[in-house]
Amino acid sequence: MAPVVHVGLVQLATSEDPDENRRRTVQHVHQAARRGAQLVCLQELFASRYFCQVEDPTWFDLAESVPGPSTHALSEAARQLGIAIVVPVFERRAVGLYHNSCVVLGPDGAQLTLYRKMHVPDDPQYQEKFYFTPGDLGFRVCPTPFGRVGPLICWDQWYPEAARLVALRGAQILTYPTAIGWLPEEKASDGATQLRAWRTMHRSHAIANGVFVVAVNRVGFEPKPGGAFGEGIEFWGHSFVCDPQGVVLAEAGEGEEVLVVACDLGRSEAVRRWWPFFRDRRIDHYGGLMERWVGDEEVS
Amino acid sequence: MAPVVHVGLVQLATSEDPDENRRRTVQHVHQAARRGAQLVCLQELFASRYFCQVEDPTWFDLAESVPGPSTHALSEAARQLGIAIVVPVFERRAVGLYHNSCVVLGPDGAQLTLYRKMHVPDDPQYQEKFYFTPGDLGFRVCPTPFGRVGPLICWDQWYPEAARLVALRGAQILTYPTAIGWLPEEKASDGATQLRAWRTMHRSHAIANGVFVVAVNRVGFEPKPGGAFGEGIEFWGHSFVCDPQGVVLAEAGEGEEVLVVACDLGRSEAVRRWWPFFRDRRIDHYGGLMERWVGDEEVS
Repeated sequence: MAPVVHVGLVQLATSEDPDENRRRTVQHVHQAARRGAQLVCLQELFASRYFCQVEDPTWFDLAESVPGPSTHALSEAARQLGIAIVVPVFERRAVGLYHNSCVVLGPDGAQLTLYRKMHVPDDPQYQEKFYFTPGDLGFRVCPTPFGRVGPLICWDQWYPEAARLVALRGAQILTYPTAIGWLPEEKASDGATQLRAWRTMHRSHAIANGVFVVAVNRVGFEPKPGGAFGEGIEFWGHSFVCDPQGVVLAEAGEGEEVLVVACDLGRSEAVRRWWPFFRDRRIDHYGGLMERWVGDEEVS
Repeated sequence: MAPVVHVGLVQLATSEDPDENRRRTVQHVHQAARRGAQLVCLQELFASRYFCQVEDPTWFDLAESVPGPSTHALSEAARQLGIAIVVPVFERRAVGLYHNSCVVLGPDGAQLTLYRKMHVPDDPQYQEKFYFTPGDLGFRVCPTPFGRVGPLICWDQWYPEAARLVALRGAQILTYPTAIGWLPEEKASDGATQLRAWRTMHRSHAIANGVFVVAVNRVGFEPKPGGAFGEGIEFWGHSFVCDPQGVVLAEAGEGEEVLVVACDLGRSEAVRRWWPFFRDRRIDHYGGLMERWVGDEEVS
């Protein structure tokens, strides 16, 4: 029988000091474990501010090797607590070659899987293409004693392809460390729509694939370095877990918060028996998904 | 500049008499056109009850050729009104070969595109695999004077692949004629979750692809032929249109209703500039989408 797994989400505000961020994160991981968490997911780039608001090569100084300071700190916590942890890392892979990655650590503290963000955004104040080389490891699933984790990161969540590919590999819980928020000038007009769209996409991955989805976002206002007064991103929090029917089991607010959520992994099979979407996929007609664009008169 | 298109949705209860269903549907198409509709979408299998609650070969008598009675009736309406119509048909293609199809008719009444439902369900009281051969025409887009329509049908809506494939072909408006409802014994416990999941998936297709999505469902209780007292399906209506950010522009209730909704097709480009998901698809790593399953230890 599939087990009930308690998943912990650590949603924090982030300071300019990576050591402090690591220390506070470890504290909150301990808190989650005390409340029963067996698998903890951290927010994207948890060790630093979200530096991608501007393109500045000095920020590459924040990058670290894998293993390195972040995985060492969390590895010790994982081992002490006997839990698995999804640890996002700004990965320094080689001289001048960096990724937005995450590492899944097992309850003995060992690295189980490395995932490198496959879909890399680049929008005003989310200028990630400057910093992060797109992942070259593909979509992976990590077997842990607490379920098979499908590690994905933030922008991946807008791509049904990513969720499907890890589900096809047997993932039971998709984890999305995230850094998403409102630009102050847009919040009043578009903020609610943006938040709803973000939540809707995550829930759709759960439904389409019959899996649990865990999204962990940061909180707090981070000013844009060198920007005008008031420029920056207000990270919206709202970290949540939904079940294989897209039902939100628990959702955080917009301040610092630790969630611990019971996920009955047996729900996937129960749901898939009634919603057997994998049975009917038309793999004989999906070739177009490998194309950039198929239409040929699409200028109006 | 992309136009504003007025889309009409005809949500009706259905009788046992196909002629009456066609007549009433045409009446309501006229009503939609009087209110400004330029592109009208009907509900799945609009000419009959939803006969798939049981497997009974006599129901094949309801099937019709294309062109045939349903397309003739709606073709005349399209020509008179100068509108395009998405017309679902239980298609008799050959002796003993049937499809769940839809035809897009242009404003001169001519058939523009035939689509045959690609994903065919089979669940208790939705026993479609007995009746409908899976489509062999693939995913298509229909250029009309009122926008490029991506015709899909009901169960297709649980498949992000289908929405993506028609969007990649340049569809601006995805239309989903639908027949979905509650089994009375499930409604109290699961009804709200089912309806929310259905709406969530549609909205996710709009968001992931930056397109409008139109879902048209039937209403009314249809008893299961030969079933016990109270057995049947309560079709839930709630036909709706959402915009390229997944915002629901209009939604019907659970009774008969005609909606006419203005869709500014220019919204797609505005939204895709901020949410440029097509730019970042990792087509170099999507090969697994052509597989039935990739995992190999997935028995627990």
